[in-house]
Amino acid sequence: MTQPTPTPVSTAPNGEEFPLPGPEDYDREISRLKQLCKSQQDQGRQIVVVMGVGFVGAVMAGVVADAWDKDKNDSPYFVIGMQRPSPRSFWKIPMLNRGLAPVEAEDPEVAPLISRCVLEKQTLTASFAYEALSLADIVVVDVQCDYLKDRLGNVREGNVEIAALEDSLKVIGAHIRPDCLVLIETTVPPGTTEYVAYPLIKKAFAHRGIMDVEPLLAHSYERVMPGRHYVKSIRDFWRVCSGINQASRDRVAAFLSMVLNVDQFPLTVLERPIESETAKIVENSYRATILAFLDEWSLFAERNGVDLIKVIDAIKVRPTHNNMIFPGPGIGGYCLPKDGGLGVWSYNALMGFEDDIFKITPMAIDINDTRALHVAELVRDALRNMGRIVAASRIALLGASYREDVGDTRYSGSELVVRKLTEMGGDLVIHDPYVTHWWELEKQDTYPSPGRSWSRFFRNQERLSDTRIRQDLSDALKDADCMILAVRHDAYMDLDPEQMVALSGKPMAVIDCFGILSDAKIQHYFELGCEVKGLGRGHIKRIKDRIQKKQ
Amino acid sequence: MTQPTPTPVSTAPNGEEFPLPGPEDYDREISRLKQLCKSQQDQGRQIVVVMGVGFVGAVMAGVVADAWDKDKNDSPYFVIGMQRPSPRSFWKIPMLNRGLAPVEAEDPEVAPLISRCVLEKQTLTASFAYEALSLADIVVVDVQCDYLKDRLGNVREGNVEIAALEDSLKVIGAHIRPDCLVLIETTVPPGTTEYVAYPLIKKAFAHRGIMDVEPLLAHSYERVMPGRHYVKSIRDFWRVCSGINQASRDRVAAFLSMVLNVDQFPLTVLERPIESETAKIVENSYRATILAFLDEWSLFAERNGVDLIKVIDAIKVRPTHNNMIFPGPGIGGYCLPKDGGLGVWSYNALMGFEDDIFKITPMAIDINDTRALHVAELVRDALRNMGRIVAASRIALLGASYREDVGDTRYSGSELVVRKLTEMGGDLVIHDPYVTHWWELEKQDTYPSPGRSWSRFFRNQERLSDTRIRQDLSDALKDADCMILAVRHDAYMDLDPEQMVALSGKPMAVIDCFGILSDAKIQHYFELGCEVKGLGRGHIKRIKDRIQKKQ
Repeated sequence: MTQPTPTPVSTAPNGEEFPLPGPEDYDREISRLKQLCKSQQDQGRQIVVVMGVGFVGAVMAGVVADAWDKDKNDSPYFVIGMQRPSPRSFWKIPMLNRGLAPVEAEDPEVAPLISRCVLEKQTLTASFAYEALSLADIVVVDVQCDYLKDRLGNVREGNVEIAALEDSLKVIGAHIRPDCLVLIETTVPPGTTEYVAYPLIKKAFAHRGIMDVEPLLAHSYERVMPGRHYVKSIRDFWRVCSGINQASRDRVAAFLSMVLNVDQFPLTVLERPIESETAKIVENSYRATILAFLDEWSLFAERNGVDLIKVIDAIKVRPTHNNMIFPGPGIGGYCLPKDGGLGVWSYNALMGFEDDIFKITPMAIDINDTRALHVAELVRDALRNMGRIVAASRIALLGASYREDVGDTRYSGSELVVRKLTEMGGDLVIHDPYVTHWWELEKQDTYPSPGRSWSRFFRNQERLSDTRIRQDLSDALKDADCMILAVRHDAYMDLDPEQMVALSGKPMAVIDCFGILSDAKIQHYFELGCEVKGLGRGHIKRIKDRIQKKQ
Repeated sequence: MTQPTPTPVSTAPNGEEFPLPGPEDYDREISRLKQLCKSQQDQGRQIVVVMGVGFVGAVMAGVVADAWDKDKNDSPYFVIGMQRPSPRSFWKIPMLNRGLAPVEAEDPEVAPLISRCVLEKQTLTASFAYEALSLADIVVVDVQCDYLKDRLGNVREGNVEIAALEDSLKVIGAHIRPDCLVLIETTVPPGTTEYVAYPLIKKAFAHRGIMDVEPLLAHSYERVMPGRHYVKSIRDFWRVCSGINQASRDRVAAFLSMVLNVDQFPLTVLERPIESETAKIVENSYRATILAFLDEWSLFAERNGVDLIKVIDAIKVRPTHNNMIFPGPGIGGYCLPKDGGLGVWSYNALMGFEDDIFKITPMAIDINDTRALHVAELVRDALRNMGRIVAASRIALLGASYREDVGDTRYSGSELVVRKLTEMGGDLVIHDPYVTHWWELEKQDTYPSPGRSWSRFFRNQERLSDTRIRQDLSDALKDADCMILAVRHDAYMDLDPEQMVALSGKPMAVIDCFGILSDAKIQHYFELGCEVKGLGRGHIKRIKDRIQKKQ
């Protein structure tokens, strides 16, 4: 496990500093937990430890702590959110214990959920002491399992960063009671529960002299989605689970049935963990494939007078095709850029096959990872048509996040657009109403999984380290030679061309990455002297020709 | 246009022979058509010629002839179904004129539709005389445009067979009135309407001295689906159309709005024909891609204890993923194996680009085209486990069609399974309740597009030429060493293992290509001494192991 050099404090996003715990803090914490759990168990509650209170774990902890047992008319679980006391993450523990959610969220349900469970129901606490594990009836593992790519556009040249998960499983094996259910919720390479977790925990048990006891191991994957329905996407959504034996399957099904809304969103129980692990990878690779498939047609459309946006709308009318989605300036988010890689890696590294059966899954990721670079080509070509070059231009990018109306910037297409145009010497100005800090640009060395940052694939990236996101469009657009509409944020869907050109102070290149501009708006920009180009929007040339014919 | 050696008769599927028309027949036919059209025009009806009364054209002709103009309280169109008087197709004309549908169909609506329009409403006739075109207000082109593959599993080594369509367009240009709307319904390489049809018709007009008149050209694609809703899939389904200019767009929208159920299934009008042509190719390539994506996961599942059928069911619960479909023993039907090829070909041959932007679209076709070969591997391995080899085995294949509960065998996965196992020396027996003749096997030289038949890719294929389809399971299974469940026909979904083994007279290899067998059935076959394998069904080994542990 890569350890950053330890420093004595952990700094929260709001700037508040928390000293890391010392030996005396541990003693106090352990006795706090023991007392708490004793009193909770006396009330008939089971103890659930959620390992990793990040994007999934924090809300999952809240959902479990908020569960209600109708038969007993009481909360069935007391939850301990666990986090390693590292400088990067320790702050989450004191924050959670104040009743504050350690994740930023557009969902108004998150803050009250956490505050209700911590302060009112008192069914949720957070801790840094692994001894919490020894008190647990159930451990839910939400530790990240990343995928490190060594090259851009080549997922096969990469590796799963499974060390953090393995470390957590060793710690779990060293502490839990033999009858504790370990539920892995992390998206993992198929086979991880049986081929990685099981032997680690068995060995840890043996080391403790616990023989002839089969660990209780289960896997279930979340389908969490950032945005306004963040909590619902965990609690009120279909789940798939499985266990390594009947007892594990029964336990995980009972647990999930208690905490999730399974009446409306029935649970699917599969036989083996590798089946639910595979389901998650296939599910996300499917989406990645659908998006990658459209990349080549996007280029075909651009070059041959086709508006792919309208074509997709025409196709989506058909119910069997209504999940077709335009790929925008690249495919971001935490899952789609990596999950297929976990599958390919598993086949070779865990399952031990040397042949190569994967064609589309890795190719889709490679296509998606490099799609954003084409946006830079459109910017270059549009500026060239106006007699300008990227290296001498001020370029305003509107939208930093990977998805509309959220502030989540993980692996967003916009990040690559910014990096590429910066490499080409452009002067980038960023606007996003949902993003206050673009961590990936600001803190390249400590960003979640350091090796994964795209920065090392481009030159000139030091220029980005003091990037500050503008919240004000007039600020962002001032003197802009180019405006890139990168995300379908609500605020960008109906911008007035007249006003935009007034803000920049001159005709500019306008790049539509996401079918944001109507034909009327495109025409208006041309009439104002702008040059317009768009991903997959080959009909723009026709609009320009019509105007020139009129003139 | 490739012309088979002319013979004086055309033989219908029922064996009836029709002499081809001679010169005197033409005179009579032309005067018949002129009289008919005159009287129809006097009743205020427009004349619609449908060129090509094959799978799409025959039913489209019926749907147009069956249309009703509520304002006029009358049939708005008189339809002439046109077909070249070739030995292969001429019989369709006299058949149609007796009120009989020239296509086999599981849809009970087809026969009454044709008979009603020909015999009762008298709004539909069929003809072989191109002079019909000169009487038309609208010509609907349903001439096939095939794709010839030179190698199996390599769609790039192939070509569009556009000559038949070009010939039809030349004939149309030579005959139609300048104000006649030509609606191309054939699935064509994107750009065909503007880059192929337009210049051909312009030239034909010029040759006739018609200058300064823009032809009226439109494109609209059907979404026809064989089966019990064949007519509905044309009439009661969403349509996309476009035209080369405003007049063409208006005319095609008005025509389709009159003949189709656009109130319930609104029409999408795109600006350029290349946009609707591209939409069709993207739509079908999308489906082909989804299926091809699952091929690699099917193999992953087989090798790692995963039942992909259950995994897909678990994923499909999610509304954004509910169109995931298991690929079965290969991807057949007329469209999916070729449409992507039309797109790739257009980019190079019509649009004139020399670079290679297509990655997934052609790869999906190649994967789908060769998936069936893996079924032969499963047969081989299952037989080997029983101490037998393919070359000395009698193999019963259940299901010849490309889709459940239809009799359509075009490019079915089953065809390749049969060809491969025949190459390996197996003795194949075929059963299908919906298929009486498997034309692709029986008549390899005259099958629709001769070069496209798979036969030339395998040895031993002469053994297949006298293949007769069994309608009786006991006949098909007698002495079988192997039973391949290839299609999800209703009749195959609940076969009794006990009974099947009794019919074959011995334990056999059972190959499930389509998730047809429940786990209980799989177990039962094992208990009866059979060896079971299935595409994507890696859990079968577990079932076998459990039984062996018990014994």
